Amino acid sequence: MGSTCEINAAMSIWRRLSLFVLASSLCSCLCRAEDSAMENIVTEKKAEESHRQDSADLLVFILLLTLTILTIWLFKHRRFRFLHETGLAMIYGLLVGVVLRYAIHVPSDMNNVTLSCNVNASPATLLVNVSGKFYEYTLKGEISGSEVNDIQDNEMLRKVTFDPEVFFNILLPPIIFHAGYSLKRRHFFRNLGSILAYAFVGTVVSCFIIGLLMYGCVMLMKQIGHLGGDFFFTDCLFFGAIVSATDPVTVLAIFNELQVDADLYALLFGESVLNDAVAVVLSSSIVGYQPEGDNSHTFEAMAMLKSFGIFLGVFSGSFALGVATGVVTFTKLRDFPLLETALFFLMSWSTFLLAEACGFTGVVAVLFCGMTQAHYTFNNLSPESQDRTKQLFELLNFLAENFIFSYMGLTLFTFKNHVFNPIFIVGAFLAVFLGRAANIYPLSFLLNLGRKYKISSNFQHMMMFAGLRGAMTFALSIRDTATYARQMMFSTTLLVVFFTVWICGGGTTQMLSCQKIRGFLEQSCLMMDFLCVRLQIGPDGVERRSTKQESVWFFRIWYNFDHNYLKPILTHSGPPLTATLPACCGPLARCLTSPQAYENEEQLKDSDSDLILNDGDITLAYGDITVSTDATGAHTSGTPVGGVAVNSDEALDRELAFGDHELVIRGTRLVLPMDDSEPPLPLDSRRHRHKNETMS
Amino acid sequence: MGSTCEINAAMSIWRRLSLFVLASSLCSCLCRAEDSAMENIVTEKKAEESHRQDSADLLVFILLLTLTILTIWLFKHRRFRFLHETGLAMIYGLLVGVVLRYAIHVPSDMNNVTLSCNVNASPATLLVNVSGKFYEYTLKGEISGSEVNDIQDNEMLRKVTFDPEVFFNILLPPIIFHAGYSLKRRHFFRNLGSILAYAFVGTVVSCFIIGLLMYGCVMLMKQIGHLGGDFFFTDCLFFGAIVSATDPVTVLAIFNELQVDADLYALLFGESVLNDAVAVVLSSSIVGYQPEGDNSHTFEAMAMLKSFGIFLGVFSGSFALGVATGVVTFTKLRDFPLLETALFFLMSWSTFLLAEACGFTGVVAVLFCGMTQAHYTFNNLSPESQDRTKQLFELLNFLAENFIFSYMGLTLFTFKNHVFNPIFIVGAFLAVFLGRAANIYPLSFLLNLGRKYKISSNFQHMMMFAGLRGAMTFALSIRDTATYARQMMFSTTLLVVFFTVWICGGGTTQMLSCQKIRGFLEQSCLMMDFLCVRLQIGPDGVERRSTKQESVWFFRIWYNFDHNYLKPILTHSGPPLTATLPACCGPLARCLTSPQAYENEEQLKDSDSDLILNDGDITLAYGDITVSTDATGAHTSGTPVGGVAVNSDEALDRELAFGDHELVIRGTRLVLPMDDSEPPLPLDSRRHRHKNETMS
Repeated sequence: MGSTCEINAAMSIWRRLSLFVLASSLCSCLCRAEDSAMENIVTEKKAEESHRQDSADLLVFILLLTLTILTIWLFKHRRFRFLHETGLAMIYGLLVGVVLRYAIHVPSDMNNVTLSCNVNASPATLLVNVSGKFYEYTLKGEISGSEVNDIQDNEMLRKVTFDPEVFFNILLPPIIFHAGYSLKRRHFFRNLGSILAYAFVGTVVSCFIIGLLMYGCVMLMKQIGHLGGDFFFTDCLFFGAIVSATDPVTVLAIFNELQVDADLYALLFGESVLNDAVAVVLSSSIVGYQPEGDNSHTFEAMAMLKSFGIFLGVFSGSFALGVATGVVTFTKLRDFPLLETALFFLMSWSTFLLAEACGFTGVVAVLFCGMTQAHYTFNNLSPESQDRTKQLFELLNFLAENFIFSYMGLTLFTFKNHVFNPIFIVGAFLAVFLGRAANIYPLSFLLNLGRKYKISSNFQHMMMFAGLRGAMTFALSIRDTATYARQMMFSTTLLVVFFTVWICGGGTTQMLSCQKIRGFLEQSCLMMDFLCVRLQIGPDGVERRSTKQESVWFFRIWYNFDHNYLKPILTHSGPPLTATLPACCGPLARCLTSPQAYENEEQLKDSDSDLILNDGDITLAYGDITVSTDATGAHTSGTPVGGVAVNSDEALDRELAFGDHELVIRGTRLVLPMDDSEPPLPLDSRRHRHKNETMS
Repeated sequence: MGSTCEINAAMSIWRRLSLFVLASSLCSCLCRAEDSAMENIVTEKKAEESHRQDSADLLVFILLLTLTILTIWLFKHRRFRFLHETGLAMIYGLLVGVVLRYAIHVPSDMNNVTLSCNVNASPATLLVNVSGKFYEYTLKGEISGSEVNDIQDNEMLRKVTFDPEVFFNILLPPIIFHAGYSLKRRHFFRNLGSILAYAFVGTVVSCFIIGLLMYGCVMLMKQIGHLGGDFFFTDCLFFGAIVSATDPVTVLAIFNELQVDADLYALLFGESVLNDAVAVVLSSSIVGYQPEGDNSHTFEAMAMLKSFGIFLGVFSGSFALGVATGVVTFTKLRDFPLLETALFFLMSWSTFLLAEACGFTGVVAVLFCGMTQAHYTFNNLSPESQDRTKQLFELLNFLAENFIFSYMGLTLFTFKNHVFNPIFIVGAFLAVFLGRAANIYPLSFLLNLGRKYKISSNFQHMMMFAGLRGAMTFALSIRDTATYARQMMFSTTLLVVFFTVWICGGGTTQMLSCQKIRGFLEQSCLMMDFLCVRLQIGPDGVERRSTKQESVWFFRIWYNFDHNYLKPILTHSGPPLTATLPACCGPLARCLTSPQAYENEEQLKDSDSDLILNDGDITLAYGDITVSTDATGAHTSGTPVGGVAVNSDEALDRELAFGDHELVIRGTRLVLPMDDSEPPLPLDSRRHRHKNETMS
């Protein structure tokens, strides 16, 4: 049906177009002054032409995204799992890039470009005096001498090239925010120590390992004369920083679909989200390494220390800013979901802008803002706004992500200054592999010394394999492609991203079954049975010890503080402060809780259970199992919540125990592709099928 | 609670800032080549500084919007109706404008700006050779000689000034699309003839009346020497076109809240939405009026005809394009709401881009695309996507609208080239008033000759009063402010918008009670009782005649065609084609319906009732009344839908009759402010209160 309409539309467009070619020869500025009428007409026409061209270019990207969505649908419909949507977007981008590069030749309009004039400064704004009329020009950037001729050459390719800052200021923020906003997982907090270790120590280790290896590679290249320009040690370190950022998207989507082990999921997701933040700040501190004096590429302890100071300052500044704005609560707007959603969106955006305006890193601030909002603000939103915000950021994330990946494909052919050096590329692949290994294996060994539940070796292999490079790596590398070294890094980075997304991303399913990693559904079902039994043993606290010792000590301290003080202050959930603060702080507690105290008593039960079974709709995925869970949850939570003095240990236990279910619900609802030709498999058979897959 | 956090945040920002001042002196580009290291550092620093400044400027706008939202909430909470949110946004914009203009003095950085160099062309891209290094500049636009010094003066004011094209290409499309998308109202189609007459004939009449009056005014000014530049008749007509576009926002929000008469609502909303489209195309055809020869401001029949051709061509082109892309259906994606919503969003955006790329008018295409999608595509979406798309565009519309209105307030003080001429302003206010009168009264008289249900004189006064000027007028007038005439128009337009939004918008409630326009709730309740009785009289068709004659004949033809052929082809609703096409077309019908035929038979009943009681949740607002409505609806729709051959007359009757309810539901859900301090009034008492208001 659609196709007939499209044909009609095409016919109509064609007819209108021929009419327009006639009409547009008239359509130009109403002459202002008679003497300059013709001049104005020419200028207006040029502007109109340029606007139409811009629209057409943007349309290419939109159609590319549309095509990607349709193909994704086909893949989901057919349960085809070897190519993720981001990999697909890259392939389409590549194809369009080839077409733009080789098939379309726009005759260069010499009138449009160039005109060198010798002046002795490069101001941000330039006024040009053309026979008495002034034109305003804005600085776009420096270009190398070799490019000067290229500019005249291929206006088309330049047109489809976005300002690299677009990625950092428009496309990355929603992606990173969404990652933070969906990080409200009990398993994340249970593995917080390990995740922080991987993200901070691991990324720094990986950065320096890659940097050192690449420096060796560059030295080799210089010796055999394969190096066409400067390449300093700081450049190598910078390369190490940008390729150390792993992407949470691809692998995790597959994990979600396959219901993979929750701990592995939490480790990988937490690590990829946080190491993006670390990599951004790390790379900017490496750029900030600036020894005094003329010879700026020697080692100098002072400059090194300052770089370290920048790292700490920018990271903690962004962190503090993100948390502070994320924590700002608005509890009275519940009756107006539209206002609430709009405010939520604006707050998140202003976090980004505030951080950038203060000189911190916007994406890092936005990440922590998202995490804080998911933890506190989300609980204060009305149910409709909870849905709206989740859906809004899900959509923004989806569009931005697919756009970045298809642009990545496009840029392989449309970027004009690629420097592909085989030695550097081979060296980079090796370094990336070794850097990842140096991150995962030694750290896992050290972490396992302190962990009750060890990170098993097949988990470690899987984490090693799943270290894809994606949007963040690309955005960091395209940000500055002015020098020879940066151009070589950019080209190599592109190849690394392509390889990891296609090969590692596509092979995840095989790798999972090869590593015999148990399906998450089974595990959680087993655990649930276990818990049902255990929790019913009684509130005597003997059996519960085991859970308590599993969690790390500082998590316990933080959790108690959060549960007893932060949540009551910032959200409607948790016990009132009057109950948790010591008696001497009574007046203060009453003062701080007063606006919520009355509401709290009304909805305490509701909000508190909301914390555990967040979406309420556990029945959605489970069916018969749910009944027992829900009953158990209600049963165990009924007792402590009824009184005013809530025992936070019990709440912690429940959170740790029931975190699984929430994850399952989310995972299922987000991804599970219901094929309409085939009825959805009943839970048992799916479990069996997965077991079979794992065994084979 | 929030305030303590904010204080913490502010403290942390302050501390970080002082750290950053130290750190940023180091943070700059990693030196590329040693000789040019210092130069590069300066450039990078400048770019970083400029980025931070941009972020801070954008932050001002975001905070402005946040403030507006919080105040709107307060107003809704307190049921304060004398100032609409858009009026409020303008006031805040004005305040910020005053602060920016008079309170903040940025020391002018002479280094940053200017440097005239004499060349003899104005290319789009300029390469500047600065001691051997090339810098690229892009053309921003021409500036008048008087501005050359201003540019050095006040960089701050220029920073908060957006490119006027931003309004047309980014902010207007979601507003206009949302207007079209929420135009799915039975009353709109019932009054289609009148709405089209007001929108097309009325707008053209108003444009020419205003143009002629303003030309008289300009002649007068020229005689007494008050005119400081050229002002041609085409300029006057252009002014007439831009101030003829009325804004649907403000008044209708109040109408919604007060549940005003559905016919009046449909007339006003339909007219304001469509006359925006007419005004855009009209103004661009006036700009396209271009007589041959040097003396370009004389009358010439040929050029006039060509302008008329442009109007017809651009309008019908945009219309066809919008309808064609709006009609493209995607029915198989129902299982993936995220993909569906993303695709919906991209399709709407690509309509805009396609129209712009073809040289048509994007906003007009988007309007008709929205209308078509609401009518056809909406029915094919999964329920979750229906919610998602509605909420998404509601949010975008809300943000864009408030942004435009607050920018409007801001620009009164920050725009540097205002030309306030008292005579022109008084003349413009008079002309706008007379133009609106010449639109409404004569047309209403003519329309009443043919209408069964007359447009009463108090309706006419209300339509006259409710002709606010808003976002579209502003966007059209700020688009080109290069000449003296355009600057004078822009300043005057701003005042017209302020006046109408504050005075007319604020006075709507008073005007409604003064004109004794019956509350819509009462009326629809009365009508419902009447219908319940009437429909139960029996399906003998005698009583039903009255409804049929109310509707205009061409609407009936169109409705039958739409119901019998278009809906079955494009959506899942309506009877299968095999039933509606004559027997000789059997094979064709079977071929066209085949993909949906089976689905149709399953969900025919569902989709068809969906057409009438769209949201299903009528119980939300009504309570006891609903039961009878729903029962009636189910009762009457049960019989004809059961069989395959649906009698379209009956469906039409039902649509015409039950359109009211849908409107009530939407109106209630969108706006009705439930005060949480005070329980919502029971329906009866509200009705009584309103009656009292009307009577007093």
